[in-house]
Amino acid sequence: MKRLFIASRGNPEQLAQLFRAELPDFEVLTEQPKAGDADVPFIVVGRPLPGVIRAVPGLKLVLSLNAGIEHLLASGEVPDELPIVRLVDEGLALGMAEWVLAQALAWHRNLFLYTELQAKGEWSPKAEKLANERTVTVLGAGALGRPVAEHFVRFGFNTRVWARSKHDVEGAKTFAGKDQLLDAARGADILVNLLPLTAETADVVDAKLLDVLNDGAFFINGARGGHVVDADLIAALDSGKLSGAALDVFRTEPLPAEDPLWRHPKVRLSPHVAAPTHQHMAVKEMAANIRRFENGEPVRNVVDRNLGY
Amino acid sequence: MKRLFIASRGNPEQLAQLFRAELPDFEVLTEQPKAGDADVPFIVVGRPLPGVIRAVPGLKLVLSLNAGIEHLLASGEVPDELPIVRLVDEGLALGMAEWVLAQALAWHRNLFLYTELQAKGEWSPKAEKLANERTVTVLGAGALGRPVAEHFVRFGFNTRVWARSKHDVEGAKTFAGKDQLLDAARGADILVNLLPLTAETADVVDAKLLDVLNDGAFFINGARGGHVVDADLIAALDSGKLSGAALDVFRTEPLPAEDPLWRHPKVRLSPHVAAPTHQHMAVKEMAANIRRFENGEPVRNVVDRNLGY
Ligand SMILES: NC(=O)c1ccc[n+]([C@@H]2O[C@H](COP(=O)([O-])OP(=O)(O)OC[C@H]3O[C@@H](n4cnc5c(N)ncnc54)[C@H](OP(=O)(O)O)[C@@H]3O)[C@@H](O)[C@H]2O)c1
Ligand SMILES: NC(=O)c1ccc[n+]([C@@H]2O[C@H](COP(=O)([O-])OP(=O)(O)OC[C@H]3O[C@@H](n4cnc5c(N)ncnc54)[C@H](OP(=O)(O)O)[C@@H]3O)[C@@H](O)[C@H]2O)c1
Repeated sequence: MKRLFIASRGNPEQLAQLFRAELPDFEVLTEQPKAGDADVPFIVVGRPLPGVIRAVPGLKLVLSLNAGIEHLLASGEVPDELPIVRLVDEGLALGMAEWVLAQALAWHRNLFLYTELQAKGEWSPKAEKLANERTVTVLGAGALGRPVAEHFVRFGFNTRVWARSKHDVEGAKTFAGKDQLLDAARGADILVNLLPLTAETADVVDAKLLDVLNDGAFFINGARGGHVVDADLIAALDSGKLSGAALDVFRTEPLPAEDPLWRHPKVRLSPHVAAPTHQHMAVKEMAANIRRFENGEPVRNVVDRNLGY
Repeated sequence: MKRLFIASRGNPEQLAQLFRAELPDFEVLTEQPKAGDADVPFIVVGRPLPGVIRAVPGLKLVLSLNAGIEHLLASGEVPDELPIVRLVDEGLALGMAEWVLAQALAWHRNLFLYTELQAKGEWSPKAEKLANERTVTVLGAGALGRPVAEHFVRFGFNTRVWARSKHDVEGAKTFAGKDQLLDAARGADILVNLLPLTAETADVVDAKLLDVLNDGAFFINGARGGHVVDADLIAALDSGKLSGAALDVFRTEPLPAEDPLWRHPKVRLSPHVAAPTHQHMAVKEMAANIRRFENGEPVRNVVDRNLGY
């Protein structure tokens, strides 16, 4: 009997049931297997409790319940030789595209401004720009960044995409590597962050980057709080360099009550809901990867431990 | 010398300059031509002052500065035998798609809800649905309705389109004629109105139509105020049948200060900015139609006086 261990801290039974439906030939455990037990080659894990992963006998593959795996790596809980698969399911990419475009279009078409004018009883049409009069820079061209960029292209925005390696995104201008970061962002009206959090990308959204944007630009963060130097962001909002920011992610979550971002008039924050995991799709994707591993086929979305994503 | 008369009440000189660039072989007038003057076959007009159109000698074609021509028809200022061309420029369709999707995605992804929670200092993630868990019905499949529906399809919404005649919109379910209106709207989460205002479509958004929507649905009006029975709309908002409405157009514009829509907590209104005319594109389109007329080719977007659009 093949074995799979669900080490999620949330509701492991619910996940286990979904896995049992996808992998009927598996024994799906929700209790910690110990040395001496039969081998359990697969573990599904969010943020692991100390010792949980190393205690599993015969473990071969770690499947993350999150798209971002920086916490899993930083925990030191995953032995170096074990491959980690990060979560990439269709629902994540769909959800992120909806959320980023919602934020970008709402800003572009002054939705929040008109709501303020409505509260004052003011009928005052603004000069409305078309998407082709705006430039958007998307940081990241991965599972989330690429479809987001494609939606921007379809609306007619001048779209730029920045990644580590050079990509080809139809209708967009692409930029690669540290040297091209400022070129990618220079003059942009909307900056969207969809990078993974690694040693290289931490603090990437700082004063230097924000400075090259167009005056009055809008910043959208759907990736991680650790990408942003909060003091620089707040300074850019206060100086008018940025006209606003939509933030879904923070260095500490939930965002502490005393954090100034809560009350900043130009910040719109949401509680890490941009791209929630849709369990059915996530389990299907993880089960497919387990099958690939079993059949000796290449497993998808394996983390590069050196690059950190 | 061919002649064109710009009868716009706004800034006719600015329009005239754009026309002179597009039609250098034309004399472009901004002063009323009178009986006895040389023939002026073309007039460009928004809402005409009384007598202006009939006074033009040798008039052959009336070019509207607006996409909606119900005021022009109702004015009785255009002799029956004169063809009217309504404005259809790419900028209108692009602008409307941006605005409708901004409103729809902002509602779908709870942007305004999270802003309210932020004001209260509440970190409380809601169960976020994906677009494929929502149904959208677009009323109108014309220059504006079709591209809007196509964007909804691309985001994965279950998309329905209703028009007078049967259309084919890839990925969407289409409905035609009065008999299918309620079927098109039944169970929809988002209702978008992009119809022209005619005798047939006036008051189409009434209690009967709103009743068949899903509970808590969202209504988006980008067309005309005359499509909506305001009392029915407000009743549906108050009963919870609708969770909100985004309104860009009203029976009287600017919306009178005493109108209850200004202060309704579930209404987001904007001052008729969904799809502003972009003069450069509009003039190009009108000039191209004038050339077609001159060359004996079929003119585009001629109004059907019987149908009223
Ligand atoms: N807010 C939410 O609800 C939510 C939900 C899911 C995920 N996320 C966040 O979104 C992040 C991105 O997810 P994903 O699935 O799109 O990741 P992904 O598929 O791994 O894509 C990462 C992209 O970032 C680029 N990149 C990585 N390091 C870089 C560097 N040093 N310089 C320039 N570009 C670099 C990569 O470039 P190459 O293509 O050249 O490798 C790639 O294009 C996740 O890590 C997670 O933090 C947030
Ligand atoms: N808010 C703004 O800023 C703004 C800007 C521009 C325009 N508008 C409004 O938007 C309206 C639509 O513009 P458009 O350019 O898309 O018009 P259009 O190209 O003429 O399209 C009209 C659509 O409505 C359908 N229709 C007409 N009468 C109908 C009826 N009785 N029953 C069912 N369907 C009917 C037509 O059906 P068929 O295809 O079968 O003929 C067509 O699909 C304009 O009239 C104007 O009022 C608003």
